[in-house]
Amino acid sequence: MTERKKYNVAVVGATGAVGEKIIKILEEKDFPIQELKLLSSKRSAGTKLVFKNEEITVEEATDDSFKGVDIALFSAGGSVSKRFAPSAIKHGAVVVDNTSAYRMDENVPLVVPEVNEADIASHQGIIANPNCSTIQMVTALKPIQDHFGLSRVIVSTYQAVSGAGAQANNELEEQSKQYLNGEEMQAEILPVKGDKKHYPIAFNALPQIDVFQENGYTFEEMKMINETKKIMHTPELSVTATCVRLPFFTSHAESIYVEVEKDGLSVKDIWEVLENADGVLLEDDPSTQTYPTPLSAANKEEVFVGRVRKDLDHEKGFHMWVVSDNLIKGAAWNTVQIAEKLIANNWLS
Amino acid sequence: MTERKKYNVAVVGATGAVGEKIIKILEEKDFPIQELKLLSSKRSAGTKLVFKNEEITVEEATDDSFKGVDIALFSAGGSVSKRFAPSAIKHGAVVVDNTSAYRMDENVPLVVPEVNEADIASHQGIIANPNCSTIQMVTALKPIQDHFGLSRVIVSTYQAVSGAGAQANNELEEQSKQYLNGEEMQAEILPVKGDKKHYPIAFNALPQIDVFQENGYTFEEMKMINETKKIMHTPELSVTATCVRLPFFTSHAESIYVEVEKDGLSVKDIWEVLENADGVLLEDDPSTQTYPTPLSAANKEEVFVGRVRKDLDHEKGFHMWVVSDNLIKGAAWNTVQIAEKLIANNWLS
Repeated sequence: MTERKKYNVAVVGATGAVGEKIIKILEEKDFPIQELKLLSSKRSAGTKLVFKNEEITVEEATDDSFKGVDIALFSAGGSVSKRFAPSAIKHGAVVVDNTSAYRMDENVPLVVPEVNEADIASHQGIIANPNCSTIQMVTALKPIQDHFGLSRVIVSTYQAVSGAGAQANNELEEQSKQYLNGEEMQAEILPVKGDKKHYPIAFNALPQIDVFQENGYTFEEMKMINETKKIMHTPELSVTATCVRLPFFTSHAESIYVEVEKDGLSVKDIWEVLENADGVLLEDDPSTQTYPTPLSAANKEEVFVGRVRKDLDHEKGFHMWVVSDNLIKGAAWNTVQIAEKLIANNWLS
Repeated sequence: MTERKKYNVAVVGATGAVGEKIIKILEEKDFPIQELKLLSSKRSAGTKLVFKNEEITVEEATDDSFKGVDIALFSAGGSVSKRFAPSAIKHGAVVVDNTSAYRMDENVPLVVPEVNEADIASHQGIIANPNCSTIQMVTALKPIQDHFGLSRVIVSTYQAVSGAGAQANNELEEQSKQYLNGEEMQAEILPVKGDKKHYPIAFNALPQIDVFQENGYTFEEMKMINETKKIMHTPELSVTATCVRLPFFTSHAESIYVEVEKDGLSVKDIWEVLENADGVLLEDDPSTQTYPTPLSAANKEEVFVGRVRKDLDHEKGFHMWVVSDNLIKGAAWNTVQIAEKLIANNWLS
């Protein structure tokens, strides 16, 4: 019996919503860890977290934090990644970055293992984890692209508040109570904490996720458009998106319309490739009202697909309803998956 | 000064959510009423409602209820319309029916006054009021069709629970309280009261509105597809839909993607025709985070449009976000509007 090689792993942003999920998944998946280093801002340093029944004190991230670290999982915001990823690389660590800081950098692979695992091999120290809404979409699109070709994607999203952080969760909870008690709702966080105006999310829908760009799209919509093309290696694929924040805590849902290249496909053809696709679970049976919902997908690692239908007026058009936990496959699990692939393929150095 | 002619009006389903809104709007718009007859099922008969400071006792609808009635506004479910609309017509009334009973009947005009007012003229005793989600969509599509031509519509909806009746409102409220108190949510109404399974709507999203059809689409989705083509007189227009129920009480929102026929259009061109369109209010300014939401549109009669954007990869593709109160323009107000047009154009007989 050979001893598995073990690695020194750092989690940057350990006390955040995604950081906590990463630590939980590292434990559940029995990731081969020699030493786990939990890092945060000065404010959260000193917090004690438990990993495999052992208490670990969270330390403030500094340039020296990464000495001896093999793999550094960043999930503390783009500015923290920009500040400390270079130090981590200098000390020999490979960074898996779950922020938008490096995603569109042409020297940085942007990876969903089910879609483009091989891209990890070309990393120069950083692998980027895509945006949550992008990850679940490309996981469902990839098998269709592989088997039938894709020419067009039009998506409307139904996104949970947890994508905007723990404060947004609290806001939804507080506003819901205020509304049900007949009180005025207080809006201070959503749609975007740093933006000029805030609107209630409880019992409402906000067609703005992240800030507006010059072209009228939000940054979230542009992430879905640009990241999808990069991950799938399809700069010519038409992709367009409308992103909407909704009053639920966990899981994003997406109404995705695609046009395939192949003629004469049926819903059964699409079902068949989705049933055999990595990371996808098909939940689609109208006769038993079977389809995924944000609540049914919560705390699970798969991407769930239902409501596959053929456009009645367009031979090559198909609908699907894609749901996944935005903090798990959409963030923490995809990050840990990339780290697993780094090890399994000897792509660390 | 000439006296306005006045009419005997019956409201069938007077104690329901839409019936109550109809009575309120008849009062607010000072509809020329001689006598207002409020009708209901046996169960609700005897209820006293107030119209213009006068108490009116709701009576059980019978075949004889329609004697002397000029205009009968039906909103009590398809089976009630099928049962009593013939009696109303026999007594000389014109029926405006807010159920799905007659909508696709080729002898029955299906009308949104801003779109196809002239169709009312050809009525044979019944004019149908379209489905709520269809009404607001065609109101926004019509000016675009008129000015630029339309070849394709792909819509994903975000629909309020009130579309499923007062019991669904209560269910959302109760489930929200249960969830916030850490109790298990009880689901007995949504997605469809008479269907086999029920799922929680609070803090969730249900991709099913009305029952599933043989082709995998729900009846709500088929209504949007078929009614849109009928109202707009465009059987050749590609229309496809995904309808989703969400945890808010009032107003439906729709992420609508269209392809126009004309080349070279900009967002400003679309804005211009929407700004001048009947029944539409443009609320679209990314620089000030201005866009409609279900809460902002509630209790208003207009169809609000925001987030107009051009597809970055398709010259003729445009997005828009369309929101309207599903019980007002989506039901009661459109019904009363049709009745107003019947009178204004002398189309009663």
